[in-house]
This record gives sequence, structure tokens and C-alpha cells, in this order.
Amino acid sequence: MGQIIKGRQSLIFEHAPGIISAASVVGNKETEGPLGKLFDMCGQDDLFGARTWEEAESTMQKEACVLALGKAHIRAEEVRYLFGGDLLRQGIATSMGVEALRIPMFGLYGACSTSGEALALAAMSVAAGYGDYMLAVTSSHFGSAEKEFRFPLGYASQRPLSAHWTVTGSGAFVVGRQRDDADPAGGEEGDTGTSLPFRHVRIAGITVGRIVDYGLKDSQNMGACMAPAAMDTIVTNFEDMARSESDYDRIITGDLGYVGGSILLDLVKNKGYSLQGRYLDCGMTIFDRETQDTHAGGSGCGCAAVTLASFILPKLEKGEWKRVLFVPTGALMSTVSYNEGASVPGIAHGIVLEHVE
Amino acid sequence: MGQIIKGRQSLIFEHAPGIISAASVVGNKETEGPLGKLFDMCGQDDLFGARTWEEAESTMQKEACVLALGKAHIRAEEVRYLFGGDLLRQGIATSMGVEALRIPMFGLYGACSTSGEALALAAMSVAAGYGDYMLAVTSSHFGSAEKEFRFPLGYASQRPLSAHWTVTGSGAFVVGRQRDDADPAGGEEGDTGTSLPFRHVRIAGITVGRIVDYGLKDSQNMGACMAPAAMDTIVTNFEDMARSESDYDRIITGDLGYVGGSILLDLVKNKGYSLQGRYLDCGMTIFDRETQDTHAGGSGCGCAAVTLASFILPKLEKGEWKRVLFVPTGALMSTVSYNEGASVPGIAHGIVLEHVE
Repeated sequence: MGQIIKGRQSLIFEHAPGIISAASVVGNKETEGPLGKLFDMCGQDDLFGARTWEEAESTMQKEACVLALGKAHIRAEEVRYLFGGDLLRQGIATSMGVEALRIPMFGLYGACSTSGEALALAAMSVAAGYGDYMLAVTSSHFGSAEKEFRFPLGYASQRPLSAHWTVTGSGAFVVGRQRDDADPAGGEEGDTGTSLPFRHVRIAGITVGRIVDYGLKDSQNMGACMAPAAMDTIVTNFEDMARSESDYDRIITGDLGYVGGSILLDLVKNKGYSLQGRYLDCGMTIFDRETQDTHAGGSGCGCAAVTLASFILPKLEKGEWKRVLFVPTGALMSTVSYNEGASVPGIAHGIVLEHVE
Repeated sequence: MGQIIKGRQSLIFEHAPGIISAASVVGNKETEGPLGKLFDMCGQDDLFGARTWEEAESTMQKEACVLALGKAHIRAEEVRYLFGGDLLRQGIATSMGVEALRIPMFGLYGACSTSGEALALAAMSVAAGYGDYMLAVTSSHFGSAEKEFRFPLGYASQRPLSAHWTVTGSGAFVVGRQRDDADPAGGEEGDTGTSLPFRHVRIAGITVGRIVDYGLKDSQNMGACMAPAAMDTIVTNFEDMARSESDYDRIITGDLGYVGGSILLDLVKNKGYSLQGRYLDCGMTIFDRETQDTHAGGSGCGCAAVTLASFILPKLEKGEWKRVLFVPTGALMSTVSYNEGASVPGIAHGIVLEHVE
């Protein structure tokens, strides 16, 4: 059927779908961060012309989708299915954001792991021949997320050092079969920014995550809650695909941050692997630790998505990295579950990204 | 590749996956309704031994999954991926409900259309050869939904006549390739209840819905908000598959209820089709209009799911109906979007269910 089932949770695609284009739309703080110059569109006031944080987040999603389609020179009508999600209750940022595109859609929720979930399902659909192009999109917004999960910004509540700073941003990805006439020699060495469609990036396989719960209950320390799920997915990926850390140039989690990241390194070490020297976390990459005061680092559905679109994929496109395990991580909680004393389980999906000539 | 792309939004599976088993778990009011005797498990007090409505909903999901697996004689470890969702913010009923099963999972959100979304993705995954068995599960709970979307039950708020009554229930479905040794002659005519696995039900195709927004803003009249989406999906299904209403024994929406259902019949008539005599709505089927005082009818992620599991699938299994278009409908809103004055767009996914000998 054109794909290979590996182990308990993984698939390897015999005809690996490509990520044809990617787009990132971010807010002000993200623009001021280390990746600032790499994003496609930066908002001045985080409102993007809208009246509310929620509308602003929807606007970001729509803009990211339109940009990604534009780069790939694909019309919305050519996209067979859209896979999208966000952090808000009832995924409202996505519903309102992608509505105007009129693409048949699957709404997703995987907390901050949703970009991995969307890419996995988009790749599965392309690899199965269900359509030429799929769109994957996720977003988060600092203002709407603080309102949703913690306190309205006007309260000026103090945040503990283990807390994350929700990224204001949306990343969109066109997943599809690369045209056979794509330049096979990669002859654009000098021009591999994100303004052009990608020709050399493939989703080679996936490892679908399961829910992992170590019983932690602190919603202000989501890194610790998500680290066990990240470990589970990474180690499962190694076992399912008979690989080890040395088969990857980078292993990149979504938003474990400084607290969760160090826990992950320990957990993985206990399993006999070492990520040292190969490990990155989008939440640690997107903000400057010294000057931007985000405490544990960035987080949110948009964090991994915009870092992938602006920073990771161009390196894969250029061949600087040949194979990356991209592992967006999510903390599965709501204010209701938190207030009722439930624990905060985690989930993480693994996406194997490869450079092909 | 084993499937046929039809039109803009539809797929027909060349090797159609089967629904191997289904299970339904419901609350007290559902037990007292017209389908009461058909459900697998009925709770006495809608709490299912839990302390909160949310925990109760999670318990229902877990029980429904375990029951569906048991009927199919399949262990949780044999299920490759789980597709699940509910109505609560951040899909918490599903996360907490399916956690113990340890099945790699995709969290979904499509409001009350989620059972269609889950069945579509499960069928797509089986048809693509991504695994032998997938699990699809959704739920809703009257208590948790009123708290989430309207008022806590203790307020005893009065509801308008256009409002729905959220079904307390969860339906789970094992989707997979039917074993080749399945009795081809259907030799169990006298014993086709839901206690046995199904042998004659296939998911022949799907029509993935797009978001349809007629600008309605009344969250207490969700039937009217969802009817345009149901029309769009039904008419698209006819066009994509070159069919008309007469190709289906029944066309069954999820929870349009009495208000939305009559709007749907008008909208479809304007497109040149007539559903008269073939139309059912799970929200009108699950409660008795005269005696149960549910106003517009039942609704919720669980409404379509438990009606499918207990009432629709057994009729398909027996061959009483040969082909059914099952169209769960969702109203995409949150209390935040509603309070901010946003409209309530709808979405509906079409699942073509067939009896095969």
C-alpha cells in the first residue's frame, strides 16, 4: 500500500510526502526574539486588525494558510483536506480562522502537540493517495491563552519561574506529493529562504504518541508534565524504527522549555540514550533567555509550528540537517480539570523529517 | 492505492473497512427514551461512580471503548490508533477517558460532528493499510455540557424551545478490516443484536465537511446553525458520488432536532432533492417528544454516536437498510466566541454505511 508499519506506534512512508511550503505569522515579542528575522509576517500590536485576542488568533491562522498556499502556488480549492487546531476551548480560533478558505476540514486537539498531530494526519492522507495537497495549521496567542488557562492580562498576575510564555503565532504547512519535475540537484543553494516552496523536505515517517501521565498536577509547570510523554515518543521512535539518537542530526521537542527539557534529558538517559549535542526545544529557541524574561521558555500550539516553518525546515531544505525528529509536546488539561484536581497528562507526536536530494 | 477520490470532498474505499463492533453507554434519561432497551450500559445516576460530571463523562468513554473491544474480541494493544473527542474545553473528557487504554491517539474536535470525523479518519487509516484496527469514540454529558456552554444545573435556568437537550452518552466503534473468514452468508439472522460483533457493515465512503456559516448567532438554536452545513454535506455527497436521495435507504443527521431538521428539508428541497420518507435525525430519535420534554431534541457528541451504535448499525447488520448516509452535525462555537458576538458556523461529515453480504 505504499507504507510500512513499524513497531507499535510508527509508520514509515514508502513514498514520503513532501512539505512543499510553510508560513509563519507571529506577534511582537516573537519578532524581537532570536528568530525574528526568519518569520514571514509580524504583527505590530498582536491584534492583527481584530477587536479581540481570539479574532486576532483566527486572523493569524488565515494569514498563515494563505501565505503557505501562495508560496506553493496552490489555490485553496486544490487542497483536499485541512487539519487544524489551537488551544482555545472548542478550537474556536481554527474554526473562525479557516472558515473563509472553504476547505473540507478536520478539527484537532492535542494541546501544544497539535502541529505534530496535524502534520501526521496530513502526511498519512497524502501517502494514502487521498489527495495531492493537504494543509496543516495550528496557532496560539499569548492574550487568548492567558485568558483561557490562567488570568486575564489586566490582572497582571505574577507567574512562577516554571511557567511558560505562550507564543503568539501561527504556522501553516502544505503537505503533498512533490512534483516529479522538482529540481533534483537542489540548484538553489543561494536562495533557500522560506519565500520559495521547499523541494527537498520529506515527512519520512511518524510516531503517533500515546497519553503519558506521571500524576503531576501543576499546570504552571507544564514542562515537567510533558517531559515523560516526549521521552515515551522519542524512545518508541528509536525502538519502532530500530534507530538511536545518532540516526538524527537533531531531536527537537515543541515546548518543554528549560524545566521540562532537562527532565527529558534525564528520562531519556535512564532508557540508555543520550540526546546531548543533538537536542533542541522550540520553546528555548524562539525567545532569548537573558533578555526576554519568559521564565521557562515559549509554549503553545504556535511555538513548535512557527519554529518549524521559519528555522527548522529551511535547514532541512538546504541539507544542513539530513534527518530531524520533530516532537511537538502537549499538556492535556483544562481549567475545569485543573480546578477539579485532575493530573496533567502529556502527549507528544514524532515526525521524522528528511532532506532528500 | 485502494480508494477512489470522488469530486471535491469525498472518498470511496475500494476495500471498504468494516465497523466490527460498537458499544453505547448512556445516562438515565436516555434509558427512559425510545431506544432505552438497545443501549449496552445504562448509568443509574449519570455519575458512573465518579465525583464530577467531567469524570463521569470520561468513565463513559472508557467503558464504551472497553465494551466495543470486548465485543470484537480485540485487546487494546491490537488497536493501532484511537480517534476521539468530546464537547468540553480542551477535549478533557477524552484525554482522561482513554488514557488508561494506552493506545496511540489523535484528539479531535468537531463539536457534535466529531463521531463522523472520528469514523472518517479511522476508516481512512484502515483503508490505507495503516493498521488492522482503529477505535473511534465520542461522548457528551448533559451536566458537563450545561456547565461548559450554558449555566450550572443548580441555577435551574429556563431553556428556550429551540434549545437541545445534551445526550449523556458515549459511543465507541472498532473499525477494521473484516476477517476473510467472516460468515459470508450472514447466517445469524436470529441473533443480530449489538452483543455480537458486526460482520456485514462497511464504511463504503466518506464526504468530509467544510465549515458553513449563514451568520446565525443564537447558540440556543443550534439546529438552525447546523442545518446549512448538513445540507452542504448531503448535497455534496450526492454530487461527488453521482447519487441522489433514492440511493440511500435512510439519510440520518446527528442532532439537528425539530427546528434544524425542518430547515434542512427546506434547504435540500431548494437544491432539487427531497429527503421526505428517508430522513431521520438522531436527536429526534433518541428522546420521546411528547413525554420527555427535551424541546428541540437531543444533541451532543454522544447523541449521534450512541444512536448509531444501538439503533442504526444493527439495522444495517441485519440488512433491513442496505445503504445509509450518516451525517453527524456540529455547531462550532464556544462561550467566548458567543459572548464576543461571533456567529455560530456549522460543520457536518458524511459517512456512507453499507450492508454487505
